[in-house]
Amino acid sequence: MSLLVIGSTAYDTIETPTAKRENILGGSAPFFAYAASYFGGVQMVSVVGDDWLPEYTEMFAKQGVDTSGIEIVPDGKTFRWSGKYRENMNDRDTIDTQLNVLGTFEPKLPENFRRSQYIFLANGAPSTGLAALNQIQGADLIVADTMDLWINIARQDLDTLLKRIDGLVLNDSEAKMLTGELNTVTAAKKILTLGPKFVVVKKGEHGAMFVSEYETYIVPAYPTETVVDPTGAGDSFAGGFMGYVASKGGALDGETIKNALVYGTMVASFCVEGFSFDRYKEITRSDIDKRREHFQRMVSF
Amino acid sequence: MSLLVIGSTAYDTIETPTAKRENILGGSAPFFAYAASYFGGVQMVSVVGDDWLPEYTEMFAKQGVDTSGIEIVPDGKTFRWSGKYRENMNDRDTIDTQLNVLGTFEPKLPENFRRSQYIFLANGAPSTGLAALNQIQGADLIVADTMDLWINIARQDLDTLLKRIDGLVLNDSEAKMLTGELNTVTAAKKILTLGPKFVVVKKGEHGAMFVSEYETYIVPAYPTETVVDPTGAGDSFAGGFMGYVASKGGALDGETIKNALVYGTMVASFCVEGFSFDRYKEITRSDIDKRREHFQRMVSF
Repeated sequence: MSLLVIGSTAYDTIETPTAKRENILGGSAPFFAYAASYFGGVQMVSVVGDDWLPEYTEMFAKQGVDTSGIEIVPDGKTFRWSGKYRENMNDRDTIDTQLNVLGTFEPKLPENFRRSQYIFLANGAPSTGLAALNQIQGADLIVADTMDLWINIARQDLDTLLKRIDGLVLNDSEAKMLTGELNTVTAAKKILTLGPKFVVVKKGEHGAMFVSEYETYIVPAYPTETVVDPTGAGDSFAGGFMGYVASKGGALDGETIKNALVYGTMVASFCVEGFSFDRYKEITRSDIDKRREHFQRMVSF
Repeated sequence: MSLLVIGSTAYDTIETPTAKRENILGGSAPFFAYAASYFGGVQMVSVVGDDWLPEYTEMFAKQGVDTSGIEIVPDGKTFRWSGKYRENMNDRDTIDTQLNVLGTFEPKLPENFRRSQYIFLANGAPSTGLAALNQIQGADLIVADTMDLWINIARQDLDTLLKRIDGLVLNDSEAKMLTGELNTVTAAKKILTLGPKFVVVKKGEHGAMFVSEYETYIVPAYPTETVVDPTGAGDSFAGGFMGYVASKGGALDGETIKNALVYGTMVASFCVEGFSFDRYKEITRSDIDKRREHFQRMVSF
């Protein structure tokens, strides 16, 4: 398999009701790549400043993530995001955003990344996604994430991007915003008329839903009590989903899709149990499979 | 099986963004009883005024619901509730409440109801539930619903009731309110220390969860696009859940519990497709089973 992700890398400062961490590794590409790496090799394209630490390159190398597509900008600073979670650990307020090197990011794909079969455009400006796609030939499956910001400020680029992808991953509130529909299922179906052949709606602590023309699959969230830091859960979910699909040769039959939703849910449930990549570093694929079995007994009937 | 429900009967006036209906049959006992009737006989205890219509008695008789426990108060008026749903069809505002005969309701169980095996105390004052339980001998399974109102104004009676029931059914926000916990799973587990052996948390459009000391089962909601009127969905869910459990002789093994959650979800999904009992009158157990099969393909993996 060759799974490629293009997205942001960040140093996050995160405050929860019980703890605070400063300048910890985050961003859509790292969370996606680490989550997907439990299922096979991953190629990562992103941009960082010269404050990038070699220990992160090592961490990803250990996981089989090829970081040769991470551009290190000399004299540049890595993108910074700072946020504070409220008591319910779902709602959060952005305290500060410093785009830094992300503000002028133009993805340059290494030659050996350009024939990847499975592509994920992690959350980023639609124009960045389009620039990446223009360097790719003959991919089997192209999936993109998006968010409210791009729906609001880059709708035209987003509409162009939607026509070039196979699948879209987004939050339920964003699906409603994108379509003007108030019902999640209706919104997902309307997105299918904008280009994508399937939509994966993320509902946070309420799970996720896959909708294509003739199919609907639903997975509830794993009922975790230990939410330490929800940052990266959505990107991790997408990483588990895409990683599993890629490991199955890009098959999109019902059983593969349901298992991909479930594996996405499982890796995301580990992600939120620690700050940054703390929990990921402690677990292996076998822990994910054990939790999947437990989850199957909770959900399948 | 003998499944008994004690609860309110109402004439509802309901406004949605697209329609309005006045004085249509509602209330926790009727919705529970009709939903449960797809799985076997039901005995209903409630109170109405002399504005009760014989057509409702006939409707329930056809479904195998014994209405001999409905007290008709001469010169009394049936409880009225009036509410308006917002655009999202989830949030609603109460416009008016007239307790009428419900204000002085003292449940009187017919002799042949007092040895029922399966008891459901539908949403109502905890004191009403306790008064009903004092007339019951040797029940196999006692389950109660509750709501924010009773948590706020009748906490002492509620605490007494919690020690006399096997299971509690309530919304996720109510579970959090009852325990002061912010995490749904943690809240459910804390409720187990208050008396019940199991808790069923209803999450509306996000499904439901069963929690006991050693077990957790989760079911997402059926992804319906046709929400005409959500009134009665929670009571219908409970009716499907209890009706199925009663039809299995009160078994509480994992497969029975998961199927009970699923059947509760299925009947509730039909309930919201019409006002009052409109949709229920059109369907049979076979329609519910067909939707269950469809749902199984969406969810089980």
